[in-house]
Amino acid sequence: MDATKPMTIQSGKSGIETFSCRIYYEDTDAGGIVYYANYLKYFERARTEWLRKQGVEQRSLQQTFNCLFVVRDVAIQYSKPARLDDVITIYTQVKKLGRASIVFHQQAMLKELALCQAKVTVCAVHAHTLRPTPLSAELYATLQHAGK
Amino acid sequence: MDATKPMTIQSGKSGIETFSCRIYYEDTDAGGIVYYANYLKYFERARTEWLRKQGVEQRSLQQTFNCLFVVRDVAIQYSKPARLDDVITIYTQVKKLGRASIVFHQQAMLKELALCQAKVTVCAVHAHTLRPTPLSAELYATLQHAGK
Amino acid sequence: MDATKPMTIQSGKSGIETFSCRIYYEDTDAGGIVYYANYLKYFERARTEWLRKQGVEQRSLQQTFNCLFVVRDVAIQYSKPARLDDVITIYTQVKKLGRASIVFHQQAMLKELALCQAKVTVCAVHAHTLRPTPLSAELYATLQHAGK
Amino acid sequence: MDATKPMTIQSGKSGIETFSCRIYYEDTDAGGIVYYANYLKYFERARTEWLRKQGVEQRSLQQTFNCLFVVRDVAIQYSKPARLDDVITIYTQVKKLGRASIVFHQQAMLKELALCQAKVTVCAVHAHTLRPTPLSAELYATLQHAGK
Repeated sequence: MDATKPMTIQSGKSGIETFSCRIYYEDTDAGGIVYYANYLKYFERARTEWLRKQGVEQRSLQQTFNCLFVVRDVAIQYSKPARLDDVITIYTQVKKLGRASIVFHQQAMLKELALCQAKVTVCAVHAHTLRPTPLSAELYATLQHAGK
Repeated sequence: MDATKPMTIQSGKSGIETFSCRIYYEDTDAGGIVYYANYLKYFERARTEWLRKQGVEQRSLQQTFNCLFVVRDVAIQYSKPARLDDVITIYTQVKKLGRASIVFHQQAMLKELALCQAKVTVCAVHAHTLRPTPLSAELYATLQHAGK
Repeated sequence: MDATKPMTIQSGKSGIETFSCRIYYEDTDAGGIVYYANYLKYFERARTEWLRKQGVEQRSLQQTFNCLFVVRDVAIQYSKPARLDDVITIYTQVKKLGRASIVFHQQAMLKELALCQAKVTVCAVHAHTLRPTPLSAELYATLQHAGK
Repeated sequence: MDATKPMTIQSGKSGIETFSCRIYYEDTDAGGIVYYANYLKYFERARTEWLRKQGVEQRSLQQTFNCLFVVRDVAIQYSKPARLDDVITIYTQVKKLGRASIVFHQQAMLKELALCQAKVTVCAVHAHTLRPTPLSAELYATLQHAGK
């Protein structure tokens, strides 16, 4: 990935949510930088906040709708590391909303510096059987309005 | 804590279980050493293996007995750090088995070097209400035989 | 611990810092509650923010002063669990500032509900040797003003 | 991904390393399954053990060769979840060894069940500058013999 050409999700279009988080000791490793798996945590925090902004909380999703979102696919490219005390920003955009899945583009930035970017596909599954299940009409309609 | 005087749990008495784990990048932080909260993970892995050795798996405990063990109290002293690639050993001993709680002494060692030690109190709770619940007579009897 | 009698650090006295954090999937475990070791992460985030409020960043501490704070001792009591989507608040108070160590009282609250509380002792060590080292006079003076 | 058609790395060819790990509470989340980011931890443990088998330890790599391996790119597909108490096996195979990078295929299995698979590209960087750096001739020769 060319770190000088960040994804279009930074372009300020509507429908792009931002979420910031501070890097603490827990996030770093003995290489002195953020451990690579942790960006998946930040990306999930950001998706959860995107969902909350649509009025949907994960816990009620699970308890009321018997629905969980599980990640099916991640393609992530790392270009620059973050370090202790940095404040990074996660940009999140829905690229495709299906009846049982959502494709997100997400990017972590340190100010103007692109750290990493990912395409993440999540699927709706039944909370107990974990089988794929279409979103309820109500939930689908709610999410369709997101980013408009 | 005086690192030259490790706890009695190293003394080779019966009833002391050992569990070894390797230190990976995920375990370390930007200080170059194992992040302090991670020892609580190793201690729980060791308690889980102690329990498994008594024939009890956490998942069946939850599903068959509607029982979870939750940690009520931890007192931990850190004396020396572990680092990337180290193999550390956790020594685990039951100090007190109650009807609804267990007190463990646990110690992390790097060969002869004491890294940290803890007294950990876990309580049995109902898996759904999370209210304290006595161990079933069967489970209590099983655990009473441990370490004898 | 009696959850109805939280520590004095909630009493609104000066010198008590608050830090809030949201509970995400990464924080929870298959018991449906926050994994016990994670509270040590939240407590460290809160101590780091306390330090930042005194004008001291961990990274500059390490790079400029060759100093790390390492945890020497934790005594933590858990009373109630937090769950997915909760926003918890960490209260942090310095109980004792020594020449090479700091004792903190910290408490995690879910609104009015006390979740857990800890006494945490951190020591200043040299960043490379990890040997105990007194705080520089400048740093000591800075921290002495905290909470006044 | 079609879980019934696992990657070729299971086919028992030479050059495929296996690494097993137990799932503990720390690995799971409130959905009752292993948290998706944690598979990247298991994959790194497995790559580290692959490297160790070639006689190379990460810590000496950093201290002797001033070299770190950092992850540049991950493409991971999740098909089935693992749960508490499961023992999963990670299969690791080098697909391409470059002068400054290595491409791995990795797969997590629960017995015969494919859980997830990933293509992971790691790059060698200088331990301090984090700039890409070719592997030393000695290290390159060592790794070339791996899997032969």
